[in-house]
Amino acid sequence: METLHDLGEFGFIERFAKQIHIGRDVVKGIGDDTAVIDVGGKDYLLLTTDMLVEGTHFLRTMMSPQEIGRKALACSISDIAAMGGDPTYAVVSLGAPSNISAQLIEGIGEGINILAKEFGISVVGGDTVQNSRIIINVALLGKVRKDEVVYRKGAKRGDIIFVTGALGDSFKSRKHLYFKPCVAQAHFLIRHAQPTAMMDISDGLAGDLGHILRQSKVGALLKEAKIPLAKGATLQQALHDGEDFELLFTVRPADADTIRRTKRFRFYEIGTIVSGNSLMMLFKNGQKRKVEMTGFEHF
Amino acid sequence: METLHDLGEFGFIERFAKQIHIGRDVVKGIGDDTAVIDVGGKDYLLLTTDMLVEGTHFLRTMMSPQEIGRKALACSISDIAAMGGDPTYAVVSLGAPSNISAQLIEGIGEGINILAKEFGISVVGGDTVQNSRIIINVALLGKVRKDEVVYRKGAKRGDIIFVTGALGDSFKSRKHLYFKPCVAQAHFLIRHAQPTAMMDISDGLAGDLGHILRQSKVGALLKEAKIPLAKGATLQQALHDGEDFELLFTVRPADADTIRRTKRFRFYEIGTIVSGNSLMMLFKNGQKRKVEMTGFEHF
Repeated sequence: METLHDLGEFGFIERFAKQIHIGRDVVKGIGDDTAVIDVGGKDYLLLTTDMLVEGTHFLRTMMSPQEIGRKALACSISDIAAMGGDPTYAVVSLGAPSNISAQLIEGIGEGINILAKEFGISVVGGDTVQNSRIIINVALLGKVRKDEVVYRKGAKRGDIIFVTGALGDSFKSRKHLYFKPCVAQAHFLIRHAQPTAMMDISDGLAGDLGHILRQSKVGALLKEAKIPLAKGATLQQALHDGEDFELLFTVRPADADTIRRTKRFRFYEIGTIVSGNSLMMLFKNGQKRKVEMTGFEHF
Repeated sequence: METLHDLGEFGFIERFAKQIHIGRDVVKGIGDDTAVIDVGGKDYLLLTTDMLVEGTHFLRTMMSPQEIGRKALACSISDIAAMGGDPTYAVVSLGAPSNISAQLIEGIGEGINILAKEFGISVVGGDTVQNSRIIINVALLGKVRKDEVVYRKGAKRGDIIFVTGALGDSFKSRKHLYFKPCVAQAHFLIRHAQPTAMMDISDGLAGDLGHILRQSKVGALLKEAKIPLAKGATLQQALHDGEDFELLFTVRPADADTIRRTKRFRFYEIGTIVSGNSLMMLFKNGQKRKVEMTGFEHF
């Protein structure tokens, strides 16, 4: 019997995507950081959903209820940022055991609300159900100007590859709990150097850059020496570990200097888009080798 | 220690709603069948989220994967219908054990897609995570003309109360799996007799009518003899059982005849809106007594 584990998350999504009904107003359905919908007007509507499960994405013993709630919303905001957009409205579903303390549940709500306020998001609805473990689903709407939306698919040979921050070891450092979604960075990029492709790094640099390469039909050459590692993190963690929530983006060579020189944010140049379909790495020892485009596997 | 069970679903939602940030463009946040948002233009944006958990809302042994998927989307469509709206875009999150068969997961997707196609809904995104039980969250967008939206709060003394179908025993009859969300009925009502209040019955007639009465600050007098019971269902089930997904609505007396006489749909007149704040029932034995406005309790 073929199982969900055999199929993997992306295998499953691919099969699911084949069956589904999509209207002509859907500019981008499954396959980018959010859906992109044309409802008329000067903006596109963005829509994303994220489910967080106790034991997989967070542990009640290792983080406060506020941190759990904050993270649930932050992951979705990061997806909206990756399209170049602004988050607007959220609905939250919560599954929990019925004997859970009201205080814990309120703490989760508090964590959601503090971050919502910070980003101007209205939490407009929700649902609560019984489940043996805490499970939180956030569906988040956003908007982006039609001429400013950034997909995964636009990277071109010669483009320069950047990330917004240090990578790896986000669980141990608790970065997955306190990271600030890169909405401001995305806005800066769009205003000063329209990125050709962008996404957020949630499953590791190699896996996520793989999505950009496949969708853009290009390859990449990364330089090990340039990859910013989080304190104590290994290269392997930066490449294949989850939940950094930094932005990964490409810009035309002519725009790269603006990105390199700005004092407003720190952007890290890590490599170049090349022809082909492989992810290559120039290692510190001078060797050039292929890197597997595998990310963190959820199943 | 106060638990979620002590608080109850509505107690929890009430507390949560107090904390949250809401922008001025949110016409209605938590507290109706869906959120109502003014994004400009002639329509309001509707947004709702529903989480279904194996063991609580469905059993893998008693229904097909297609039925599970269908139900997950149908519940959300019913919420959009209750506002007088049309469903438009959905995102689906799925939690499942990693050893689950790919076939089962595909069946769930199929059930979602068949219903999506029937109602012109584009499924534009999703998320998959590991969970010990199957858990499905559907977040659904919809739209409604600004002059046609119907809330729970508009019922007035003298209004006539109707439901769209027979109530009770929806689990045994499997109605909770095959019901067709009442979008067409809602459209008919809006075109021929703008309802003053409307919602879908998901937690039993008494509990859900209670929401309309409290929000409209009125009472109601129901007639036992008029309440349409599903085959084999008891009055108690109709009043306090879950998942009928019929529409419950009120209209001005002048509009009631149109509703009574139409051959297009069958609407059941069950009582009248009165002053006060109680739900009264005229029983078949001639007695008039108060009915508790309690619905199906999820915690």
